[in-house]
Order: sequence, then structure tokens, then C-alpha cells
Amino acid sequence: MGRTADYSRQTCPIAATLEVIGDPWTLLILRDAFNGVRRFEQWQERLGVARNVLASRLKTLVAHGVLRTEPYSDRPPRHEYLLTDKGRELRPVLLTLYDWGERNIYGEGQAPNRMVHDGHPFRPKLVCATCGEEPGSRDLRRVDQDVAAPTVGEALARDAG
Amino acid sequence: MGRTADYSRQTCPIAATLEVIGDPWTLLILRDAFNGVRRFEQWQERLGVARNVLASRLKTLVAHGVLRTEPYSDRPPRHEYLLTDKGRELRPVLLTLYDWGERNIYGEGQAPNRMVHDGHPFRPKLVCATCGEEPGSRDLRRVDQDVAAPTVGEALARDAG
Repeated sequence: MGRTADYSRQTCPIAATLEVIGDPWTLLILRDAFNGVRRFEQWQERLGVARNVLASRLKTLVAHGVLRTEPYSDRPPRHEYLLTDKGRELRPVLLTLYDWGERNIYGEGQAPNRMVHDGHPFRPKLVCATCGEEPGSRDLRRVDQDVAAPTVGEALARDAG
Repeated sequence: MGRTADYSRQTCPIAATLEVIGDPWTLLILRDAFNGVRRFEQWQERLGVARNVLASRLKTLVAHGVLRTEPYSDRPPRHEYLLTDKGRELRPVLLTLYDWGERNIYGEGQAPNRMVHDGHPFRPKLVCATCGEEPGSRDLRRVDQDVAAPTVGEALARDAG
């Protein structure tokens, strides 16, 4: 259960994100981190994932600066994993995944849990930060840039450098 | 390159979504579908993915009602793949993945392409559909429901039934 697709030669921010968080289990590890999970044994118990896979995923997330480690015991030496600011910025990704699964697979109100925002039901809505409107399918388009485009691999190497 | 994680025993809408679109390459196939790609050969050329893998991913997406097929030639018989309404509802997932990769890996304005909404720069912002506010990390929480929670596998089986 190692990497199963290599996106490093793509030139695309979506592929770049998936190169960091697209491995199997990684998004569920992050989901649990947003729900307060910080320790290896907690993830292992909740996900039932093989220990070597979990260790590998956590290591990758720390290497990419999505999680950071913090010691919580000296003897024995133990650390827990906390979301960084970069990691917290993944929340919209998880909320949109949640919303699609609730509406399209579980059915509205049928999910095993629900999201509550400040006392009222939460449903994510994606708007344009510039004008505040929800973009329609016809008024949003992708424009290629003039700049020589780094691949995902190059962008990640520069980010780590 | 088959499935590499089985989320069917999870009880969670995020896991349910990933059970449908979490396979390697699937999100890039959908990215291209949003950019107008409809035919097997176009995906194959853009992604450089093995033909059997691509065929398997398209078949899964059709089985889950994310894509649908439409004939475009009788002799030889050929069909293309179109996003369904259910598929189009994945756009916020792709836009949040794009945004994270642009800001955190490529750097703002450094991505190989950019999103334009109705003539101005597009940046997604996730707000609460109920109140219109952007939720903070402290005022959004997950509440477990009382209902007997179907697993992802059960929810998908019911959805297909």
C-alpha cells in the first residue's frame, strides 16, 4: 500500500494537492485530526489501518508541513501530531467532501453525524471571494498562464527548499 | 493499481465520497471532465495513465452515477463520458483542492493556470449556506446523530438499489 499514482510530472495545483494528501487513508487521518485526534494509537484504533501505513502517512504529512510533532512525554519519549496553519487550510476540502457524501450517498439528514455552525445546521457553500457570488458552471473558467509552468515535482521541491 | 484502501466499513460521509472518487487518478479524470474532456483517448493522452486503469476508473464513475455515457458514433460503436448532475456537484471539491495547491505549493499567482470568474480573479471562499458567514475553527462542530448509522458500504448499496 505505497503510493499508487505519481502526479509529480503534472503541472496543476489540483495534482499538487493530491500529491501531498492523495494517498489512501491520508484524508481520513486529516479528518480525525480536525476532530481532535493527535496520537498514533488513537488513529490506529479508529481507522484499523496497518501500523506501517499509518506511520508512513504521518511522516509524509509532517514532511510537507501539514502536521507538526510535539513531545508529550519524556520517558518514554513520545510525541503527538498537530495540524499546522497549512494543515488547517485543508478544512474546506474536507467540508466539501463531507457535503457531497451526505447529499449524494447518505441522503440529507441521514448521515451518521451532522455539522453545526454556531447553533444552526451547517451546509457549505462555495462563493467567489472577490464578488461574493456563487459561480455558475458557465461563468467560471480556467486560463493558462504565460509563466513557464513548474511541474508538481518542481513546485514541491522548491516548497521544501 | 487497484483499490488500495477499503472504506466501506467506515460510517462517515467523507469516507463515502472517497469510496467513490478516492482512487488514484479519479480526481484528475474528473478535473479534465470539468475542462471539457469527454473521450477515452483524450484522457489517456493527457494523463499518461495505463489504459486498463483508465477504463476501470471510468467504469466505476459510471456505476456510481458521476459520469454517464453517450454514443457519438455507430460504426464503429463509440461513446463519450459526460458529467451527470451528481458529478457536477463535485466542482467545489475540485476548486478547494485547486486553491490549497495554489496557495500552499505553487504560491499565489505562480500556478500554471488561474481561475477567472466573470472577468475577475476567482478565489473560492467557503461560507455557511444558512447564515452566509465563513465559519471559524471554534464555531463549527460535528454532532453525532441518534439514527442507527449505516456504513459506507450499506449507504452505497442502498444508493445503487
